[in-house]
Amino acid sequence: MDKLKIGIIGLGTVGCGVYKALQNIENVEIVKIAVKNINKPRPVDVPPEIITDNPYDLINNPSIDVIVELIGGVNPALEYLETSIRNGKHIVTANKELLAKCGEEIFNLAEQYNRVILYEAAIAGGIPIIMPIKTILAGNKINKIQAILNGTTNYILTKMDTDGASYETVLKEAQELGYAETDPTGDVEGFDAMYKITTLSTIAFKKRIKLENVYREGITKIRKEDMEKANELGYKIKLIANATIDENDNADVRVHPMLVSKKSMLAHIDYVTNAVAISGHPIGNIVLSGPGAGEFPTASSVIGDILAIASEFGKTDYLLPMMRCNHTSKANPVNIDDTYNKYYISITAPNAIGIIAKIGTICANKNISLSSIVQKGVSDDNTADITVITEECLERLIKEVVNELSDCTINSIIRVAD
Amino acid sequence: MDKLKIGIIGLGTVGCGVYKALQNIENVEIVKIAVKNINKPRPVDVPPEIITDNPYDLINNPSIDVIVELIGGVNPALEYLETSIRNGKHIVTANKELLAKCGEEIFNLAEQYNRVILYEAAIAGGIPIIMPIKTILAGNKINKIQAILNGTTNYILTKMDTDGASYETVLKEAQELGYAETDPTGDVEGFDAMYKITTLSTIAFKKRIKLENVYREGITKIRKEDMEKANELGYKIKLIANATIDENDNADVRVHPMLVSKKSMLAHIDYVTNAVAISGHPIGNIVLSGPGAGEFPTASSVIGDILAIASEFGKTDYLLPMMRCNHTSKANPVNIDDTYNKYYISITAPNAIGIIAKIGTICANKNISLSSIVQKGVSDDNTADITVITEECLERLIKEVVNELSDCTINSIIRVAD
Repeated sequence: MDKLKIGIIGLGTVGCGVYKALQNIENVEIVKIAVKNINKPRPVDVPPEIITDNPYDLINNPSIDVIVELIGGVNPALEYLETSIRNGKHIVTANKELLAKCGEEIFNLAEQYNRVILYEAAIAGGIPIIMPIKTILAGNKINKIQAILNGTTNYILTKMDTDGASYETVLKEAQELGYAETDPTGDVEGFDAMYKITTLSTIAFKKRIKLENVYREGITKIRKEDMEKANELGYKIKLIANATIDENDNADVRVHPMLVSKKSMLAHIDYVTNAVAISGHPIGNIVLSGPGAGEFPTASSVIGDILAIASEFGKTDYLLPMMRCNHTSKANPVNIDDTYNKYYISITAPNAIGIIAKIGTICANKNISLSSIVQKGVSDDNTADITVITEECLERLIKEVVNELSDCTINSIIRVAD
Repeated sequence: MDKLKIGIIGLGTVGCGVYKALQNIENVEIVKIAVKNINKPRPVDVPPEIITDNPYDLINNPSIDVIVELIGGVNPALEYLETSIRNGKHIVTANKELLAKCGEEIFNLAEQYNRVILYEAAIAGGIPIIMPIKTILAGNKINKIQAILNGTTNYILTKMDTDGASYETVLKEAQELGYAETDPTGDVEGFDAMYKITTLSTIAFKKRIKLENVYREGITKIRKEDMEKANELGYKIKLIANATIDENDNADVRVHPMLVSKKSMLAHIDYVTNAVAISGHPIGNIVLSGPGAGEFPTASSVIGDILAIASEFGKTDYLLPMMRCNHTSKANPVNIDDTYNKYYISITAPNAIGIIAKIGTICANKNISLSSIVQKGVSDDNTADITVITEECLERLIKEVVNELSDCTINSIIRVAD
């Protein structure tokens, strides 16, 4: 059998993992690897003749069948991939940002040139999720995803919970351990999870979700006091990527912290582990969990994609039809103000007397039911520390409640998962 | 596009679920359905002209491309499937017993006739597991599976735990609710899970595992006292299907109750939910969980398999190469006596005085370390109730320990998961 010939762009952590793991795979040959700096020391022993600092040595090489893109970011990756597709190459990529921002154009281009783009590694690292959704779950109407898609933030939240430490303390420790980057914005502000849920919900719902319609909040405002209160009430706080679609194709897709019940699986997904809970018909509910990042788990997914192409390569027919992602119909976006949620609200009231009654009245006037309200003592300065959890209500109304509590300090508002 | 033409043998719970779900699938046509009793009332409205009580109306029908077998058991299913394959049909089946007992012959026959047998529904119901292992995880060397594969026993054990009830009480309740059959042997003695782990470990390890080499124990001897003690020590008791393989292809495959740490994911898989934990390289550890049985989840898997065939049907090339299961090389069996495990042992000693010293000495003489030993008071009759958890040691030696404690009553011995 002819070997599948691949070119790899990028030889960082994931690239090295892919290189190592491919040494055991017989039917795949690495023809060329493009890197930024040829002389940089690397933990793998790559023959110098296959290394280049010019990606076009791969992209324009007619003997290469598949380009494996592992550099991330939109530029110059987009140009590399578009030219590769035009040159007749299939694509394997781990680039979540590119897929979220340019998915529509690049999948359409691939279709035009009859090439596939596989990207299992881009979403939830090693967890098998894209290929299962596209193949064995293909008969389902999936209408809900609830997922932990970012290992850095899940690590920080887990450590805040177990150590009773502040966000700042744990972030510093995570940076020292290499779990968070020097500029952690992409992770802690939820961009990474937002990119992932954009593509994941697109393929699960079979409707294109636009990145600009995905609501996003990060974890930087979560206080250790919120962790403690959530715990007392039977919850953990997680950064959750949420996506739902109704029968009229209204898609509500977002990333923000949530209180999740300790009875749910997601509450037990700790440290850098990721998990994806999917609901649909006829499947019901499933949860897939595993390592969301790292050299080897990500390599597992990249290699799975390469082997899928290898298994069908050389066939004259349309390759891997189930894995195509050129979804043309779009979902209708839902504004976050128009969504229904339960809310955890931490309030410091200037005057303890009558405050419970006031909160109760403001909520009752807007038809908002309270599921629990806890006031713990009264401080020496006569302020009161109050924690409220509401029943499901409109986000717009909760914003009005907060405005009407203008004499109180609202310490935190965090949505609560069902 | 031509529709894929299928024949369904069996229209019980799963068959009805498949029938209903296929109504929404455009590119698949149900040509014929074979049932035992045409006149039996069913919850689906099937046109009478496509119903027959002769399976050979399907098997010998040249217009049918795929036989979907949903009757279970070896006879007559084996003959139906063999004839279907010889007649050039692909197979989709949910028949775990047939695959475990006759997997080798039937997969070889399918290969000989260049046909595929897909069976996602046979193992862990709706959880995507077979197709992910065969496709996106194909680059991995999987060396360990730890799974909850039987919903009935997991329901019983969960209820025993939450209600503090005996096995007999909960079994009766489960039978009344339809979660357990009138003759529950297949589930409670571990046969169902044994069939599933036989096939699951075969495809995960890429070595054929023989059913006769799979060790099996059921849950009928688990006492509510064991549940309580396990809980106190930080464990839950689950019926676990275990499979490991070492670098010399020695495969240790078995089904038996185990104490699993409350810190593990499997401890939180409750009621009829199933879960499969897989370890390998480069993936690391992943856990897939979801509904292990039921009309709709099982239908999801059957339909996923049908759609996989539909997606490639009509191609002139070798169909779905990654999904082939004709593993020729065999694993070496490992005798349970030669395995290393941790053990929970519940002992009633006739005489409290000196018994701890005696147990300690017997274990020490065999180089068995104890991880915990708890004696709770002394009864009026001077007997002592003692719970021991050992460190990892050889099964053969634990049997010797039990023999040497011949003056004690051994209430339970249950293996403990790492």
